[in-house]
Amino acid sequence: MHPLDHALRLEAAGTGRLRGEVPHAYWNMVGPYGGITAAIVLDGVLRDARHIGEPLVLTVNYCAPVRDAPFELVLRLARTNRSTQHWSIEMQQADAKDAGAAPVTVVQAQVVMGVRRALWSHPGIDPPSLPAPETLRRRLPREGIRWFENYDIRLERNPMNGDEPDAPVCSWLRDDPPRPLDYPALAGLADTFFPGIFAHRKAIVPIATVSMNVYFHTTADELAAIGGDWLSGRTGSGVYRGGFFDCASQIWHRESLIATTQQVVWYRD
Amino acid sequence: MHPLDHALRLEAAGTGRLRGEVPHAYWNMVGPYGGITAAIVLDGVLRDARHIGEPLVLTVNYCAPVRDAPFELVLRLARTNRSTQHWSIEMQQADAKDAGAAPVTVVQAQVVMGVRRALWSHPGIDPPSLPAPETLRRRLPREGIRWFENYDIRLERNPMNGDEPDAPVCSWLRDDPPRPLDYPALAGLADTFFPGIFAHRKAIVPIATVSMNVYFHTTADELAAIGGDWLSGRTGSGVYRGGFFDCASQIWHRESLIATTQQVVWYRD
Repeated sequence: MHPLDHALRLEAAGTGRLRGEVPHAYWNMVGPYGGITAAIVLDGVLRDARHIGEPLVLTVNYCAPVRDAPFELVLRLARTNRSTQHWSIEMQQADAKDAGAAPVTVVQAQVVMGVRRALWSHPGIDPPSLPAPETLRRRLPREGIRWFENYDIRLERNPMNGDEPDAPVCSWLRDDPPRPLDYPALAGLADTFFPGIFAHRKAIVPIATVSMNVYFHTTADELAAIGGDWLSGRTGSGVYRGGFFDCASQIWHRESLIATTQQVVWYRD
Repeated sequence: MHPLDHALRLEAAGTGRLRGEVPHAYWNMVGPYGGITAAIVLDGVLRDARHIGEPLVLTVNYCAPVRDAPFELVLRLARTNRSTQHWSIEMQQADAKDAGAAPVTVVQAQVVMGVRRALWSHPGIDPPSLPAPETLRRRLPREGIRWFENYDIRLERNPMNGDEPDAPVCSWLRDDPPRPLDYPALAGLADTFFPGIFAHRKAIVPIATVSMNVYFHTTADELAAIGGDWLSGRTGSGVYRGGFFDCASQIWHRESLIATTQQVVWYRD
């Protein structure tokens, strides 16, 4: 079983409730990788028989580190319209310090689903021009950061070198081993971008994602047709103020912009 | 009283509950202007004595048209950390068709608050270069769209003319009458940008905002110092697919990028 599919094994626990286990294969420093948490949240909605359409927007706010313990997803379907549907989702875990206490919310999320129709369309910005993936070195994980093993990320250049820390960082990216692309996988890939602050500070400073948005621009059929092919990505540098920075990134398959994503990240200098 | 302050008159209705009236001064086509709803949601958190820090991220998902009827804000404080705090907010109204039914959720929102500290900082992208506001014509409201009256928006050019519908649209913007800037006012201003699809289609096609994110990059003190001064803005063109488009916009005061915003908008062609 692919590590992503292993991570997405959720068990129904009544209407709007799913149970799961924290995926060790996607372990980060003090909890699971934020992208896998985003994938799990989105998968929760897609598994719910009440859902309509396809994901448009995924908002994930990381409230607290996800512990190495079982979790529950609590889904609330607020509204179903003809073209859109609105969900809120919480990931909850037992209180580590007090087993008798109410569960703790570790993630607050919202998902907007949309029914795409055959209408006038217009593509987004063009992808970066990158050398072939075979000619670029794979980004290597630091010791103990397991989630890296599940993504093949090939940066165009080492962002820690050079004098332009604001310059966009472009890359190839895909699951490793390659896996048919779907919305949860794309949500996971949306969190793989190089944190701009490392380039600015020329150091690995402490960071933690506070909020992530993923905007999906493609249909399920188009995602399925991509399969395990390489995607290209670009991440820009945002504003760094008072301990929080933002960054915007894009993901393409060939010429097609399939997702854009925005993060707010806590940092220390 | 400034129309914005009139719109923000919320009445406490128990812990985490506020009541308000829909602001007629900000009426749009079939409900209040989305930006005023965003301002109200954010103001709800700022009025709650439990809040810490300053707004970092505001996510507003528009589930259904807000009716011309009283509303309640239901606030849930999920988590307070040392540097961040996580809220979810619903705007609810009585069911128009069944007075005995449970209230209807018309907006789902999330707010992330953050405690900004004196750390290394780095500015975002530079503002557009615009002719003086006095030399540009104010954008005029269409008949019956009242919210326009409360914003003085001066576009650099008419986006409906010209052959480059993807080119960014830059503008001056401020409340009218001018009002000291604060976070709710900034959230309201973040929804004033020209919808790119009108430029693409060279027509006013039906649109409705589905989701709006506002990222705040400035402190309350800096906002207060701006007062009622002109802000500059830029909105870019995104992807138009299957009945939904996205767009990213930025707001500056002088050289300082104070907010960025991202929308997903439903459209018909």
